[in-house]
Amino acid sequence: MTVRFAILGAGRIGQVHAKAVTATPGATLVAIADPMTEAAQSVAQKYGCDIRTIDEIAASSDVDAVLICTPTNTHADLIEQFAKVGKAMFCEKPVDLSLKRVQDCLATVAAEDATLMVGFNRRFDPDFMAVKAAIDAGRVGDVEMITITSRDPGAPPVEYIKVSGGIFRDMTIHDFDMARWLLGEEVETVMAQASVLTDPKIGEAGDFDSVNVMLRTASGKQAIITNSRRATYGYDQRIEVLGSGGMVSAKNMAEANIELANGDGFGTPPLLNFFMTRYVAAYENEIAAFVASVADGAPTPTTGQDGLMALALADAAVLSVKEGRAVKLSEITG
Amino acid sequence: MTVRFAILGAGRIGQVHAKAVTATPGATLVAIADPMTEAAQSVAQKYGCDIRTIDEIAASSDVDAVLICTPTNTHADLIEQFAKVGKAMFCEKPVDLSLKRVQDCLATVAAEDATLMVGFNRRFDPDFMAVKAAIDAGRVGDVEMITITSRDPGAPPVEYIKVSGGIFRDMTIHDFDMARWLLGEEVETVMAQASVLTDPKIGEAGDFDSVNVMLRTASGKQAIITNSRRATYGYDQRIEVLGSGGMVSAKNMAEANIELANGDGFGTPPLLNFFMTRYVAAYENEIAAFVASVADGAPTPTTGQDGLMALALADAAVLSVKEGRAVKLSEITG
Amino acid sequence: MTVRFAILGAGRIGQVHAKAVTATPGATLVAIADPMTEAAQSVAQKYGCDIRTIDEIAASSDVDAVLICTPTNTHADLIEQFAKVGKAMFCEKPVDLSLKRVQDCLATVAAEDATLMVGFNRRFDPDFMAVKAAIDAGRVGDVEMITITSRDPGAPPVEYIKVSGGIFRDMTIHDFDMARWLLGEEVETVMAQASVLTDPKIGEAGDFDSVNVMLRTASGKQAIITNSRRATYGYDQRIEVLGSGGMVSAKNMAEANIELANGDGFGTPPLLNFFMTRYVAAYENEIAAFVASVADGAPTPTTGQDGLMALALADAAVLSVKEGRAVKLSEITG
Amino acid sequence: MTVRFAILGAGRIGQVHAKAVTATPGATLVAIADPMTEAAQSVAQKYGCDIRTIDEIAASSDVDAVLICTPTNTHADLIEQFAKVGKAMFCEKPVDLSLKRVQDCLATVAAEDATLMVGFNRRFDPDFMAVKAAIDAGRVGDVEMITITSRDPGAPPVEYIKVSGGIFRDMTIHDFDMARWLLGEEVETVMAQASVLTDPKIGEAGDFDSVNVMLRTASGKQAIITNSRRATYGYDQRIEVLGSGGMVSAKNMAEANIELANGDGFGTPPLLNFFMTRYVAAYENEIAAFVASVADGAPTPTTGQDGLMALALADAAVLSVKEGRAVKLSEITG
Repeated sequence: MTVRFAILGAGRIGQVHAKAVTATPGATLVAIADPMTEAAQSVAQKYGCDIRTIDEIAASSDVDAVLICTPTNTHADLIEQFAKVGKAMFCEKPVDLSLKRVQDCLATVAAEDATLMVGFNRRFDPDFMAVKAAIDAGRVGDVEMITITSRDPGAPPVEYIKVSGGIFRDMTIHDFDMARWLLGEEVETVMAQASVLTDPKIGEAGDFDSVNVMLRTASGKQAIITNSRRATYGYDQRIEVLGSGGMVSAKNMAEANIELANGDGFGTPPLLNFFMTRYVAAYENEIAAFVASVADGAPTPTTGQDGLMALALADAAVLSVKEGRAVKLSEITG
Repeated sequence: MTVRFAILGAGRIGQVHAKAVTATPGATLVAIADPMTEAAQSVAQKYGCDIRTIDEIAASSDVDAVLICTPTNTHADLIEQFAKVGKAMFCEKPVDLSLKRVQDCLATVAAEDATLMVGFNRRFDPDFMAVKAAIDAGRVGDVEMITITSRDPGAPPVEYIKVSGGIFRDMTIHDFDMARWLLGEEVETVMAQASVLTDPKIGEAGDFDSVNVMLRTASGKQAIITNSRRATYGYDQRIEVLGSGGMVSAKNMAEANIELANGDGFGTPPLLNFFMTRYVAAYENEIAAFVASVADGAPTPTTGQDGLMALALADAAVLSVKEGRAVKLSEITG
Repeated sequence: MTVRFAILGAGRIGQVHAKAVTATPGATLVAIADPMTEAAQSVAQKYGCDIRTIDEIAASSDVDAVLICTPTNTHADLIEQFAKVGKAMFCEKPVDLSLKRVQDCLATVAAEDATLMVGFNRRFDPDFMAVKAAIDAGRVGDVEMITITSRDPGAPPVEYIKVSGGIFRDMTIHDFDMARWLLGEEVETVMAQASVLTDPKIGEAGDFDSVNVMLRTASGKQAIITNSRRATYGYDQRIEVLGSGGMVSAKNMAEANIELANGDGFGTPPLLNFFMTRYVAAYENEIAAFVASVADGAPTPTTGQDGLMALALADAAVLSVKEGRAVKLSEITG
Repeated sequence: MTVRFAILGAGRIGQVHAKAVTATPGATLVAIADPMTEAAQSVAQKYGCDIRTIDEIAASSDVDAVLICTPTNTHADLIEQFAKVGKAMFCEKPVDLSLKRVQDCLATVAAEDATLMVGFNRRFDPDFMAVKAAIDAGRVGDVEMITITSRDPGAPPVEYIKVSGGIFRDMTIHDFDMARWLLGEEVETVMAQASVLTDPKIGEAGDFDSVNVMLRTASGKQAIITNSRRATYGYDQRIEVLGSGGMVSAKNMAEANIELANGDGFGTPPLLNFFMTRYVAAYENEIAAFVASVADGAPTPTTGQDGLMALALADAAVLSVKEGRAVKLSEITG
């Protein structure tokens, strides 16, 4: 079976997925939708697909699945619209910045028995997959303590930060998902602390740029997350898992695997410093996994529930910073 | 000037220091004291020094300085005794497990204008010193976020744990001192979480074996500490400092710097797994620094105040775990 | 301008290049030729191109360039055929196993003023390109001593070895090209030694499996090459360049960038162990470079002369082993 | 039994060994000899030993063993003198720059049944010992190909070079010994090439500064050695052993195990750049091994024969460069 795709949104991430869809065996790109005519035309021309409106796509019998790559504030509405017409859906995280809205939306998905995958690209990174595989193969014994280091090369524009939902919902959310995935057990309590250290404008916008989070599960497993909006040496993305039998970690990816030595010592290049170069394989694998799920009628590897739980952890972190205390996840999810 | 030493306590750490004293130019070992005759004789014979009682040493005109290597519960009394007779003192951490007792003891030291260095050996590790030197040279800009990973190869006997004051006062205390040293600013708030994951007997003894701590200074600098009593791969001792201009980190020390490759991949040996092999250079440097301070009449590089502040951070962490909230250091130090 | 391609040979490497051509902007695949109908059909179907005979391609006005991916013993004849009809040519190394035949063939290319690129994929590997860029930027000063380590995971079938021209012409030839490229000066003398250590069948076929080579230029720059047909840990491909001002080196590529630690120490996965996974980016870059040269009418980055010189070095190494002496390259090239 | 030592020569290496002897359990330093009164007094004072003449030491009944740390041209005579009076001898390499003189001297040692250890300190480096242990434990299978990289931070003074016997006898000799030790089989043929690249004065003195050597044993095992008198990044000392089952290698030692990251990438400090800091543990282990041999009456771990064979390999390399051919070791040793 070939899965026939339409992509909603021809922006940066829509283009990444357009390339992935056309390169994935068993998938074909039928249509692109975007109110920006030029962006839509560029994708249509490059990959030989139609331009259609979102409503036309919802009504198209030659489309099996949609990739929702529109702005965040449209996600939940689109998911509900396409759930009702029986299209399989892949939606970029987050479903919505409001937990309540996400819960409602997922209720609709469930009621329609629709297929929804929420994009957490890092789970599909080859190195992080190898870490997970090592855990699943029992190579570190029981997971006990996880350290996630996640630092952006630089902060996004303040205009973006203002509508982002804040660092915990915009940036740490990826790390919350990784923590859940690797802990293998739901988080019970969250403690967080936050500062503004890299740019006072971020503070003026009501956000933080430097945060640490501690998570604890009912059985006592723990994870720590350390985030900064600034890492001069590139996009810092590391994971370390300590278990009863050992430790497994994923290392950073440099621009090139060379080393230069001189009187100053030994040097290697900075890290890849853009998420689209750092995670190029992850984006391809993610779409391939969605295609495989749709083709097989199998559950998607990441779900709406994953999106909801990561957002709930972000909400708990926000509350922990505000009240200076450990927040139970159940306080958030109700 | 040659600094003439006596060592109180001929146990494991006393022997380490006896070797360091005799190997340090400008220092000489005059006497050893220990109620265990055999232990005292062994040191006396090996290094050609007298055996005296503690009171004899306090009265000895040929002793300039003492190394207090006796059990923790004797430290404060001995410090007070020797402060009053004008001997320079090096005392193994902690001064006492009670913050109040430490405060009283330090008041006596101050009243007598005595010299007291409290042993935080890690500050004298060549790699950690190189990290500090890089910070002080401005090579990472302003310090923002610190990650300290500190894991023991295995837990001490439960009998020891019962009298240790708990993991925060016994193990994390070293990391609290490192954090203070590297942050360059006092900590304002402490959040901690703790579990028993490696051995239920540790929990039965009222202690934890797996803890994470977050520290925050008034200006928003942060540090996280992750501790476990079990690391199958050796003694894990890492520090990473993120600053506005870059990052500096100290790596672990392996048993040998070799690599073995075969069909399973590439392997390097486990880490040195005993604090006395891992920190051999640190112990030597520490004694050399004390000798230099005494000889020059200069302030010691670590002080009673350092010992007190690290203990206060430990007390704050204990309270944070108990009450599930951020604890202000001022709640502890009063 | 879009460069219109035909590929001669639909075997393993032909398929690699078919994928690269269709993925390269500015290039299009028009036709495939292969006497094995099934192989040709597979490529034609996958990439939507015609199946034609070699002679039909030579006569096709809609073909600008050909990729010669046929067996080695056909290369020289095909180059001459296509040079005469004015097609730009990319030919897999070697042009021929006979230096005389290569010289004659290149004379024809020159007489026809034809474009010929000989495939030395390693020059297009991103890491090796970064090494070359560092040298060209003066970051190691004047190049003095090069060490090239090149080991295959395992030997090819003995049937292949028998017709391969021997290890120096089949395997070391890549390293000879790298040495010439990085030395920036032609080699004057060659010394080589050779053994059979991994499989006596290789010796029975008249070849070696373990060789070392030393090269020296007129100005005294040196290179050493170490080759083995067996490396249990994967495909070992390293380069190290010492210059007057420093050293630059390219590291190996592992299956994943993770590390596993336990009581046995720290382990990382084996190396990628197949040239088509190890050099996937190199093959893409190589075709892109050819496309760019043809589109611009610019010289190709690797030439027939490069192919000839690498073969001459291989012939010199063969003679050095036979006669146990330093062989001047001028003895070979006449 | 305590081994009672005298040291002949109070220069740099004599002082290193004086420290090692006094620190080694089971050894004591009785006397030092040096025509430079000041140097002798300095050692005598520091370690509390007598000053005696060489002849007095030869006649001393309270001296069991001597360390010969005098200039090279005195070694053979001193060995013969002390062999005849029954002292155990440790002599710094080389015994003499003339192979014939070495052979004669060793004949005297044999005739007197004397104990002679020739110093090849690198065999006692902890990392190289770990490499050898891995080989002996069968962890790489049968040894096949060895790569030894050995580069000095800078050349010695030209005045020294003129009397050094040349780079092969002065510098490569250590690598020849390592190759013999690790190959586990005597070398049959030697090929070498040499240049002057770092300083023309070295060429004017009749020597080279950049050399490569290939060694081959009767069974076809191979080793390559690459040497330079200049490495801007420090003292480069690496060994890599490929076997039928895997590879083992020893890495370099940096000034500190820290890493600094910023916009230029990741940097680690230069290598330790002096043989006395790089090989501090090796010198200590070497003396401890000699002490153990003398105390036990056991064979020394390195012998006069080791010194002779390394020198013969150096002579073969000199001849190979001169005549541009593979030289059989039997041509040299007769």
